[in-house]
Amino acid sequence: MTIAHPFTNDYSRSAHPKILEDLVCLGTRAFEGYGCDELTTQASQLILEACEAPEGAVYLVHGGTQVNALYVDFVVRPWQSVVCVESGHIATHEAGAVEHLGHRLVTLPADEGRMDAAVLEDYLRSWRDSQLREHMTEPGLVYISQPTELGTLYSRKQLEALARVCRSFDVGLYVDGARMGYGLASEANDVSLADLSRLTNAFTIGGTKCGMLFGEALVIPDAAHAGSMRTLIKAHGALLAKGWLLGVQFLTMFRDDLYTSITRTANERASRLTATFIDAGFEMLIASPTNQIFPVLPLELARELIETFGVYEWEPVGESRLCVRVVVSWATTDEDEAALHEWVRSHALR
Amino acid sequence: MTIAHPFTNDYSRSAHPKILEDLVCLGTRAFEGYGCDELTTQASQLILEACEAPEGAVYLVHGGTQVNALYVDFVVRPWQSVVCVESGHIATHEAGAVEHLGHRLVTLPADEGRMDAAVLEDYLRSWRDSQLREHMTEPGLVYISQPTELGTLYSRKQLEALARVCRSFDVGLYVDGARMGYGLASEANDVSLADLSRLTNAFTIGGTKCGMLFGEALVIPDAAHAGSMRTLIKAHGALLAKGWLLGVQFLTMFRDDLYTSITRTANERASRLTATFIDAGFEMLIASPTNQIFPVLPLELARELIETFGVYEWEPVGESRLCVRVVVSWATTDEDEAALHEWVRSHALR
Amino acid sequence: MTIAHPFTNDYSRSAHPKILEDLVCLGTRAFEGYGCDELTTQASQLILEACEAPEGAVYLVHGGTQVNALYVDFVVRPWQSVVCVESGHIATHEAGAVEHLGHRLVTLPADEGRMDAAVLEDYLRSWRDSQLREHMTEPGLVYISQPTELGTLYSRKQLEALARVCRSFDVGLYVDGARMGYGLASEANDVSLADLSRLTNAFTIGGTKCGMLFGEALVIPDAAHAGSMRTLIKAHGALLAKGWLLGVQFLTMFRDDLYTSITRTANERASRLTATFIDAGFEMLIASPTNQIFPVLPLELARELIETFGVYEWEPVGESRLCVRVVVSWATTDEDEAALHEWVRSHALR
Amino acid sequence: MTIAHPFTNDYSRSAHPKILEDLVCLGTRAFEGYGCDELTTQASQLILEACEAPEGAVYLVHGGTQVNALYVDFVVRPWQSVVCVESGHIATHEAGAVEHLGHRLVTLPADEGRMDAAVLEDYLRSWRDSQLREHMTEPGLVYISQPTELGTLYSRKQLEALARVCRSFDVGLYVDGARMGYGLASEANDVSLADLSRLTNAFTIGGTKCGMLFGEALVIPDAAHAGSMRTLIKAHGALLAKGWLLGVQFLTMFRDDLYTSITRTANERASRLTATFIDAGFEMLIASPTNQIFPVLPLELARELIETFGVYEWEPVGESRLCVRVVVSWATTDEDEAALHEWVRSHALR
Repeated sequence: MTIAHPFTNDYSRSAHPKILEDLVCLGTRAFEGYGCDELTTQASQLILEACEAPEGAVYLVHGGTQVNALYVDFVVRPWQSVVCVESGHIATHEAGAVEHLGHRLVTLPADEGRMDAAVLEDYLRSWRDSQLREHMTEPGLVYISQPTELGTLYSRKQLEALARVCRSFDVGLYVDGARMGYGLASEANDVSLADLSRLTNAFTIGGTKCGMLFGEALVIPDAAHAGSMRTLIKAHGALLAKGWLLGVQFLTMFRDDLYTSITRTANERASRLTATFIDAGFEMLIASPTNQIFPVLPLELARELIETFGVYEWEPVGESRLCVRVVVSWATTDEDEAALHEWVRSHALR
Repeated sequence: MTIAHPFTNDYSRSAHPKILEDLVCLGTRAFEGYGCDELTTQASQLILEACEAPEGAVYLVHGGTQVNALYVDFVVRPWQSVVCVESGHIATHEAGAVEHLGHRLVTLPADEGRMDAAVLEDYLRSWRDSQLREHMTEPGLVYISQPTELGTLYSRKQLEALARVCRSFDVGLYVDGARMGYGLASEANDVSLADLSRLTNAFTIGGTKCGMLFGEALVIPDAAHAGSMRTLIKAHGALLAKGWLLGVQFLTMFRDDLYTSITRTANERASRLTATFIDAGFEMLIASPTNQIFPVLPLELARELIETFGVYEWEPVGESRLCVRVVVSWATTDEDEAALHEWVRSHALR
Repeated sequence: MTIAHPFTNDYSRSAHPKILEDLVCLGTRAFEGYGCDELTTQASQLILEACEAPEGAVYLVHGGTQVNALYVDFVVRPWQSVVCVESGHIATHEAGAVEHLGHRLVTLPADEGRMDAAVLEDYLRSWRDSQLREHMTEPGLVYISQPTELGTLYSRKQLEALARVCRSFDVGLYVDGARMGYGLASEANDVSLADLSRLTNAFTIGGTKCGMLFGEALVIPDAAHAGSMRTLIKAHGALLAKGWLLGVQFLTMFRDDLYTSITRTANERASRLTATFIDAGFEMLIASPTNQIFPVLPLELARELIETFGVYEWEPVGESRLCVRVVVSWATTDEDEAALHEWVRSHALR
Repeated sequence: MTIAHPFTNDYSRSAHPKILEDLVCLGTRAFEGYGCDELTTQASQLILEACEAPEGAVYLVHGGTQVNALYVDFVVRPWQSVVCVESGHIATHEAGAVEHLGHRLVTLPADEGRMDAAVLEDYLRSWRDSQLREHMTEPGLVYISQPTELGTLYSRKQLEALARVCRSFDVGLYVDGARMGYGLASEANDVSLADLSRLTNAFTIGGTKCGMLFGEALVIPDAAHAGSMRTLIKAHGALLAKGWLLGVQFLTMFRDDLYTSITRTANERASRLTATFIDAGFEMLIASPTNQIFPVLPLELARELIETFGVYEWEPVGESRLCVRVVVSWATTDEDEAALHEWVRSHALR
């Protein structure tokens, strides 16, 4: 990559210096293998405290597609399906991982990336009332993301509404938090980890996109339902021999709130950039309060922005404009940010 | 772990200092995600050169269970099975990963950890000639390990015999090389990576147990058969976002032969320890020319060895003796080795 | 069921009397098990002749969901998906059978139940050109039905267009012919079994809904690709011990064209009933040339029709009308037909 | 087949005349589809009464491999395995159906076809106590057959011992009763259907080998655990559209005890044939009290028996003898039996 100031994604650079430092500090100390080490234990403890889930269990695995497939495989029975929005990551860019393990996905239309409680309820009711119900998979788990694929957030009220619907139909609720750090640190956010413990059956806290080398924490607030997960992780080829590699990174992240402090900075940069885009006369596809923003530009300008800053084309808007995805990350520097402000201002529509 | 000089396994300590150094050196440079980076490309190139497989393909994934399940899933069809020895790792300690993906395992008796070509041929012939053949899975792939679970090696001649049988029955041959480094560096070894390229359909070069933080390289010598593997890796939840973490480590390993130099040292230590055990009057379960050795001790002594050096109990030998597994690793130090020599000598049977 | 003249579906009554007669005639003659008998061989031969596929292979299994899942499992690789229309039977009422075997479904919007070649081509092109292609399943097989779920038919030209797109993207084409008899016997049809042999990779000829007790024939015109299918059928729990039960039924069906003669009668009844509905002032949702027709009635009338003739509610049309599905079957009698004509005329809108 | 008096197996001939008669009697009466008909309800009721399981559930499917795979898939979780003896049908001749659905099989040595409670307990204890337990699948279900593959029976005491071990390790117990009729009707048998209801989690009552065209009844004595089974049956492609075909056959079988009366006759023939073999100086491989017997003959005689009566070669006994499997079925006639007695006597060893 020869892009000086990339805004491509939040996983193209190594890890926060503190992570690397703590990793190297361990030298060649010996640890118990497969996540039975004390660093993993301590990290899990810290995470459960942050989640206010003393009875919970935490499992650390290396990646987001893996952790999603793992939890689905753990709870969804062979006659059941997973319900998500059409733009849900498991439905679009996880190469059919959920289906490959034998589980059907059912997709609902999204509202700015979110699943609407009323839409979900309609679907669940129509399934329950169908003459042909036995010929259709039973909804077993609802999958949502916080933040969503569009950078938007569920409010606590929206999450409570979904949880209520799920409970009334006896369907589980799972939250993919691959970018949870950016969500937690958002000014617009009113959903805490403790809220997630209270309202969901499980959720993840993503590290890969939030400053770690790799690593996602699966939190199951009610550990009574977590027996034999480690054997399933092994069966998925996801029980890292040197599991303490995950432990040490999450420990660094959750000691002294590094997790939300570096993501907060990213959100603030994104917020300032949004303001600059708007001042310069560009529309935003959506009002995103996290680290991904979606400006809409005339085709030619969009092409230049893509080339200069390595951003992704998102979708066409009408005939003559293009929405692009600008991703600020924990690694974005003041220089990166300044370069983008400068470009936007110098290409202002007014 | 409070064991001063552990001989428990070869994956309890971090990575070779050169690995950590090269990793930290990258700073926060940005890379293409998902293994499309230049470090991965260079590492793959180096590996293919070492394997003398210019037409081959290399895929880097994080762990051994994952890479085994991945290749099986890639080539074994739904009506086929995988044939391995009873002590094969996929048949014992991978939590049913292969079966979980829908593939049956058929196990044959082992000869010092190895599959015997004649035993394989008998099985394949009995399947082919069975009246009920259509009611049994078709053998699709033979899985062996080099070194085996007992630290023994296939000779080139033995491997050629297996390859001949496989070809004559149109069955693939796959070699799990989780400890390949120790095999390549063994004085007793006459099987090169180029031999593996010539004789097998695929094999792995293990990093996790040979001095890397994690990482296994899957080598497919004839890349014509390697289309769409990356999508399957993604479907397995095994396409690391920061794939260059694998690339940088393998690059370090295969530049300047670090891979075989650190494993050679481990083998030499194991060889000296074997001599000391024998001099002290202990039998070895098996003559292992690699880093895992299997002394047989009277029960009480065995228990003390287990406690002092953290070694694993392997299996009872008669009523009053126990075989233990002593694993020397790339990280074993002169002090570790000296401590074990000392213990053996001071507990000599004669 | 206490409905005197049911138009509920085409599988609620036993089998055509000739089928039962031929079955009983066999007495207690002994046959080779698992479909290796001479009746199955003869039936397969007759079917291949009807399909003008002398190099083909035929597999007889008991049901439609089974045969669909079987062929998908036989050809679709773990990194691939099946493409079908949203109303495709595998996507709606087969309880996730395809996904349960590990294969993702991708659905496209339907045009009167049909997949449009241009829509398919757009999808395949968008997949091929996507930056994130490797993160999405590769299209491996296109699934369509003839007749469709709405009773409509693909013309030969439409089928050729689909086949051309499939070939140009190297994707297989499969036709679910659960109601093939009604399709072949339709006046509107110009697609012969020989056309299907020429244009598709595989298709089925359904017996269950066309007058047999049970049974679907899977035809693979190019048998070079059909090795080991019988083992897969066994692995699916679908290799009937008394396989000749399927053989004898298909033999009866394909000797003297019973298959198309009884379905032709059903189509003619459906056609006359359509005319009566239209004369009576009712709209049809769709112009179906086969045995399923879809009249639209005011809510109250629809409810009465449902109750009296056991037909299924299909979907609401606007606020005040309902579309119902009227199914004529091979077993529908003159009395049944007369009763429905009578009801429609006496409830005419004008 | 040109064999005048076949003793090949118990599924080569159609169905008991009463079955065919009752089937034909139904004419073209219309039934609810997919097993929601009154015949299926009545048959299930009769079966539950015979099993003294008023709270139980019955599911009728077409074949033995299907019903085994179905129940395993219904209860065995992704991290669990099925434990059976090496000669168990699911481990030998079901083409990997259980593994194909993602579940590992663990095999134990058999004692005359039976699983020994002490052997099972040893295995379960060794798993529970293993250091590497989390790297091995958790035993989830024990699979046995009554009668076994060798025609032998579990006594009530043996079954109780197995049930006790299963319960103490919280593992399910499932009995494959593909030939249950011959077991129930055996003079040596002391295990009733009510015993099975009391001691197991589920068992099957086989029809295919006991005089029906096809059909196996899965009995789950405690129906509280039977939710959504019908959707799973559909997902397995095993929900017969004309489900009443199964209902009518089981109804015939369980009304007036046809099921045990025709199998009792077969057992009596087998018992008389055993006596004749022994009188003629032949050894039996095993003392089987059901319809399958296993005489051992000098090679040449064995070959002649195989050719004349179509029996299967079972296994070599020493260098010069062969064990063959002679299967008496519900369809075996007085003439068949007389012909075999005659042959044995005229080839007597003394």
